[in-house]
Amino acid sequence: MKTDVQIAQEANLKPISEVAEKLGINANDLELYGNHKAKVSLSVLKDNQDKPDGKLILVTAINPTPAGEGKTTTNVGLSMALNYIGKKTITTLREPSLGPCFGVKGGAAGGGYAQVVPMDDINLHFTGDFHAITSAHSLLAALLDNHLHQGNALNIDMDRIVWRRVVDMNDRALRKITVGQGSRANGVERETGYDITVASEIMAILCLASSLTDLKERLGRMIVAYNTAGKAVTASDLEATGAMALLLKDAIKPNLVQTLENTPAFIHGGPFANIAHGCNSVLATKTALKLADYVVTEAGFGADLGAEKFFDIKCRYAGISPSAVVIVATVRALKMNGGVEKAELSKENVKAVEAGTANIVQHLDNLKKFEVPVVVALNKFPTDTAAEFDAVKKACEDKGVKVILSDVFSQGGKGGVELAEEVVRLCDQNVAPYKPLYALELPLEDKIETIAKEIYRADGVEYTLEAKQQLDEIAALGFDHLPVCMAKTQYSFSDDAALLGAPRNFNIHVKEVRLSAGAGFVVAITGAIMTMPGLPKVPAANGMDITEDGEIIGLS
Amino acid sequence: MKTDVQIAQEANLKPISEVAEKLGINANDLELYGNHKAKVSLSVLKDNQDKPDGKLILVTAINPTPAGEGKTTTNVGLSMALNYIGKKTITTLREPSLGPCFGVKGGAAGGGYAQVVPMDDINLHFTGDFHAITSAHSLLAALLDNHLHQGNALNIDMDRIVWRRVVDMNDRALRKITVGQGSRANGVERETGYDITVASEIMAILCLASSLTDLKERLGRMIVAYNTAGKAVTASDLEATGAMALLLKDAIKPNLVQTLENTPAFIHGGPFANIAHGCNSVLATKTALKLADYVVTEAGFGADLGAEKFFDIKCRYAGISPSAVVIVATVRALKMNGGVEKAELSKENVKAVEAGTANIVQHLDNLKKFEVPVVVALNKFPTDTAAEFDAVKKACEDKGVKVILSDVFSQGGKGGVELAEEVVRLCDQNVAPYKPLYALELPLEDKIETIAKEIYRADGVEYTLEAKQQLDEIAALGFDHLPVCMAKTQYSFSDDAALLGAPRNFNIHVKEVRLSAGAGFVVAITGAIMTMPGLPKVPAANGMDITEDGEIIGLS
Repeated sequence: MKTDVQIAQEANLKPISEVAEKLGINANDLELYGNHKAKVSLSVLKDNQDKPDGKLILVTAINPTPAGEGKTTTNVGLSMALNYIGKKTITTLREPSLGPCFGVKGGAAGGGYAQVVPMDDINLHFTGDFHAITSAHSLLAALLDNHLHQGNALNIDMDRIVWRRVVDMNDRALRKITVGQGSRANGVERETGYDITVASEIMAILCLASSLTDLKERLGRMIVAYNTAGKAVTASDLEATGAMALLLKDAIKPNLVQTLENTPAFIHGGPFANIAHGCNSVLATKTALKLADYVVTEAGFGADLGAEKFFDIKCRYAGISPSAVVIVATVRALKMNGGVEKAELSKENVKAVEAGTANIVQHLDNLKKFEVPVVVALNKFPTDTAAEFDAVKKACEDKGVKVILSDVFSQGGKGGVELAEEVVRLCDQNVAPYKPLYALELPLEDKIETIAKEIYRADGVEYTLEAKQQLDEIAALGFDHLPVCMAKTQYSFSDDAALLGAPRNFNIHVKEVRLSAGAGFVVAITGAIMTMPGLPKVPAANGMDITEDGEIIGLS
Repeated sequence: MKTDVQIAQEANLKPISEVAEKLGINANDLELYGNHKAKVSLSVLKDNQDKPDGKLILVTAINPTPAGEGKTTTNVGLSMALNYIGKKTITTLREPSLGPCFGVKGGAAGGGYAQVVPMDDINLHFTGDFHAITSAHSLLAALLDNHLHQGNALNIDMDRIVWRRVVDMNDRALRKITVGQGSRANGVERETGYDITVASEIMAILCLASSLTDLKERLGRMIVAYNTAGKAVTASDLEATGAMALLLKDAIKPNLVQTLENTPAFIHGGPFANIAHGCNSVLATKTALKLADYVVTEAGFGADLGAEKFFDIKCRYAGISPSAVVIVATVRALKMNGGVEKAELSKENVKAVEAGTANIVQHLDNLKKFEVPVVVALNKFPTDTAAEFDAVKKACEDKGVKVILSDVFSQGGKGGVELAEEVVRLCDQNVAPYKPLYALELPLEDKIETIAKEIYRADGVEYTLEAKQQLDEIAALGFDHLPVCMAKTQYSFSDDAALLGAPRNFNIHVKEVRLSAGAGFVVAITGAIMTMPGLPKVPAANGMDITEDGEIIGLS
């Protein structure tokens, strides 16, 4: 089979203006970025306010393994399959981050015959949204340090500065740094650090904002520090709101591209689900719901992270509810969850598959708590055997959930027809809205405990002294009512990446709690999770190149 | 009179595709960024290789003062005026940097009726070129620190790491920092710092590259550190070249916009002339020379910095030569050079103007050394008097140079007709190529001394011990033959910003020398110049905003 890049470069793309026109988007509401990318004006959502919403379908997954599951591929493939069977469908995805692209990952635009295109642009700078977010975040950091340097009129407590810096790069050396060294002209010396841009509160705000005005209000509420009297100092206190909004004026608009089969795709916003809330933008999803009958959307990593936050943060804030959930798995990935090493994955091992189904079964049990119908999409691999498939089928059907083989990777939309038909059936049946996991009124610690016990199946939650103190401070400031955004390894239900399958008899360790008053949630950082990744020994960047005539090497 | 933003927002813009078509650019060679910005393919230059070049006109200025001179305004206005008198003209400018935009400056797209548009986009993210440069620079920094963390196989000498980080923000607290603090997983602890993106060697490379292949070769040659044997470690040694080139694949293409009178404008690259070489990209200038009969281009700040580096670095590498030079001044700015305070500028003061002409006269004498004909453009101000104008006229005509009043700020192209006619006359007369100030074969110290004595009129050059050592090392590495890129305050011929007019009896103080082996020059940092600016007490950002219906406040 051809490589992803080859398939993408041979794709028969339509001008994006044509894709937009079919959706009923006016030329006036479209800002082209070349022939195959465009920004869609926010007025499209306003102008269609009275139209009923299409059906929303969430694509989520088991815990990821090095074997690969194909969540984005399924998201893209299912949307193509729905179009294939005559349903007007839009896919909505997150924008890839540059950092991981140069680390291990390579790229993130689906795979095989289920990709969004132009994949090279999408994987690199795309329409500049992440750069705009990095700029707005950097501006606030510069204004904050400048305020300290110019006399600290707001009486900021030097020990309680919480605004860090961000860059869209995996750069471990920036995790903990000291700034303001050298002469007095270089500002005030203090310890701080960088996170990756996808962890920025501004990224979360861009993904949760319902309008430019809402964006500005949220930006203004962001807490950068506390003053010596213990009161929060916000971006608004630093008079930074307007300039940040100006930097984000285009980034807030959803990006329109297409799949290899010309299905419209809104790719907008990109918080990671291990360190942030992990869903594409509310504005993109809501705009898509006005323009199509079916909207397929993703939540990052496994359902323990992405789906939980999709329901408890995104849907709650946006006032939307999915009609069906697709949970993606592969026989190989379940085998790894059952204890098999990567090198042994191609050998049939029914016992290991059976053991590994503990992982998917826990996800199925969890998803029931949100009261939305579920189907399992099993991505086909040449080495899968019928006995292995049956093992997965049996485990899921015991829970009343259908398992459908999906082959969108090698066949495109055609390979997902059965899945699409089951999704339509589930959507047609379902009328009730989803049920959140916890009530906002609960104290923060109860909300964290609910997630840890109900979703992760932990025995309990342990807090560091620092985290305890932070929780008390947040409650004292009156932010106890916010939802919780868990930051946890994606590889395990627990906060220990090594515990695959469905671990039991463990505690969740909360080491730090950060208040995102603008985004509107409280981030609980667990285990060894880092908000700034590092590069591996041999970074993917080493193998990348572009030739004089534009051929791209090493992106996938 | 209306504000710049008002005038810009009322402009009658043509679709950029129409502007391109008039230049003979194929639709295939144009990548639209909205309706009024586009990237132009590098094949336009290749396909027109055999066409003769148009005439190149350099716009430079006296040393800048807070009174304002209007160099960009004149650049834009002159190009409109040339079109007004029937000459097919393109203007070429540098892209503004975000950092200063939020500091003191506000924006940089000309003023009044001589602006390039869309000014808000140009002043903000534009087509993302600076973000791409920042990303490529950041990637190399991350790869370097990762290399140290993963065992330092290249034996990099921890005391001789020269690659710093960059951000497009005025952020003084990042000038000197320590990275890699905390646990071992956070990399190797070491001192380093940030420069502003316009000072990045990658910015210089983008502006000097003649093709994608040349760009890659230059990127690969960049020195990031020295190993324990004293040998240079390059970006190529870190296998970073291809990935950086991939990040710059679109940034290398010139951007096409238009003036308020629809004159085509290539705005591409943006090194500052006080800390970098200060000229727009060679590819944009050369492409423009193939498409128009006259090309107006700028070099940053005063002629002591921008023009010298335009001749000795840009023209030398690009193999181009200007046919005429326009030097921009205002009566008010010359008055300040003559010792008048800003508050007193509106009062007639012929004596001060006479004293201040020492500044322009020295620039005129300097420009003669490059053997290109010169004209003075005096930007009209309502408070100027006839006697003041005559004082400027007399001083310049004594040097055989005409002074022409320009009123493009309030009249657009019509206000620059006389200037345009004189420029055409000078171009028609001139056939000889320019003469560089120094031969490349001279030792580095002689080159620095030549610039210091011949252009700045210093008595001599003093080096810090560090700078001396750096010069010796550069010579030992075999890079003695490179041209010199002086980093010096823009406000004075000397390295002391307070010495206006035409100071004498001073030395130039070189505190640090940096080798840019990829860009192909040696940066000599003089006086108190910083490669990372700071924000003022009240940053321009504080006054910026955007309303729900898109009205922009505080950019100018």
